[in-house]
Amino acid sequence: MDSNLNEDRNVDAQPPKAVVVRMSLYLREVQRRLDRGESTVSSKQLGEALGIADTQVRKDFTHFGQFGYPGRGYRCEELVPRIRKILGTDRQWPMILVGCGNLGQALLGYRGFVPQGFSIAAAFDSAPHLIGRNLGGLTVQPMSQLDEFVQRKSVKIAILAVPEAAAQRTADALIVSGIIGILNFAPVMITVPKTVFVNNVDLTIQLEQLTYGVARQGEID
Amino acid sequence: MDSNLNEDRNVDAQPPKAVVVRMSLYLREVQRRLDRGESTVSSKQLGEALGIADTQVRKDFTHFGQFGYPGRGYRCEELVPRIRKILGTDRQWPMILVGCGNLGQALLGYRGFVPQGFSIAAAFDSAPHLIGRNLGGLTVQPMSQLDEFVQRKSVKIAILAVPEAAAQRTADALIVSGIIGILNFAPVMITVPKTVFVNNVDLTIQLEQLTYGVARQGEID
Repeated sequence: MDSNLNEDRNVDAQPPKAVVVRMSLYLREVQRRLDRGESTVSSKQLGEALGIADTQVRKDFTHFGQFGYPGRGYRCEELVPRIRKILGTDRQWPMILVGCGNLGQALLGYRGFVPQGFSIAAAFDSAPHLIGRNLGGLTVQPMSQLDEFVQRKSVKIAILAVPEAAAQRTADALIVSGIIGILNFAPVMITVPKTVFVNNVDLTIQLEQLTYGVARQGEID
Repeated sequence: MDSNLNEDRNVDAQPPKAVVVRMSLYLREVQRRLDRGESTVSSKQLGEALGIADTQVRKDFTHFGQFGYPGRGYRCEELVPRIRKILGTDRQWPMILVGCGNLGQALLGYRGFVPQGFSIAAAFDSAPHLIGRNLGGLTVQPMSQLDEFVQRKSVKIAILAVPEAAAQRTADALIVSGIIGILNFAPVMITVPKTVFVNNVDLTIQLEQLTYGVARQGEID
């Protein structure tokens, strides 16, 4: 949602959110190339993978310091840990899942987290019929145990998969317990202090981006 | 991922993707206000809801024509259908779901689609143990029936919830059948022709945006 068009080359300047998203995409592409046994990658190749210009790739990297070797591109083995450090994924972040309905259960089985080192350390719900159940190898815990777990394990990140009506009050409880990053699947915007980071996974917004394109395509036909 | 910094005020110019995302967020905010009985909304109020400046709100709208009344803001009742028309959600888009594992089953029960008029018209899978099962009111159909369904119902949008290894070949099959918009949940980038729109729901990218913020927060503490 960041509309920051800041082009300041200063390394300390806060890069636009879109740049941070692209760092994730560069990381995927470099990892893919490394898996294929390639040792270097050019900004042109990275740009092609993302459908953007090589100048944009180089500009994105300048937000985070000096990268690569002029005319020889980037060394994949150096680039992967570099980007992981930028993204904070050079270390493990134990996460908790709050809300163990259909969506929560799907997330407990989601394999896409694994290659990037994310894992769910505990699952919580308030529904008596879910508490104590074993889902994806975790025993669902009552919300009353959340505070203690978050503090003992220094958990900073929570995945919020509760119904819309419970999202704000659950987020409030998470923040009180010490959570400062929330991946929110509830189809509602939650209000948080400035020190807390929220990423909203709103599927209707994703779908509207598709209908926007698809409807326009229809007009061109 | 669009890095288009085009500031052309021409209505016909293609707005940056971030602007289209914000149109979805404006729509949510205006709908909320309408539900509360409010008849008008200012660009300042819309900006505050999204954490951006009112000048950015007005600039976003200029991509799509003339909006609002100087000094009096926007009429909520006019704004909602206007934005829905821009996003293509002024009409119904029957969608199909392909992949009925954990995630697919969660999506079949996802209520967040409903308020924006999205609904899943049919569900497909290739696994014999899923075909014929009733999930969320739909009978899971074999992939062999996909072509006929997509063409008969003029389906344009598919939700792809298959495992990573099956994502590209399933997307290829969808495109051949006539699908031009894909919401991709598989944790892999899929390659499509330029006439096809893909929105990738990559949960690790969403999480990396959180760890990026959370790791920096730790450095500030």
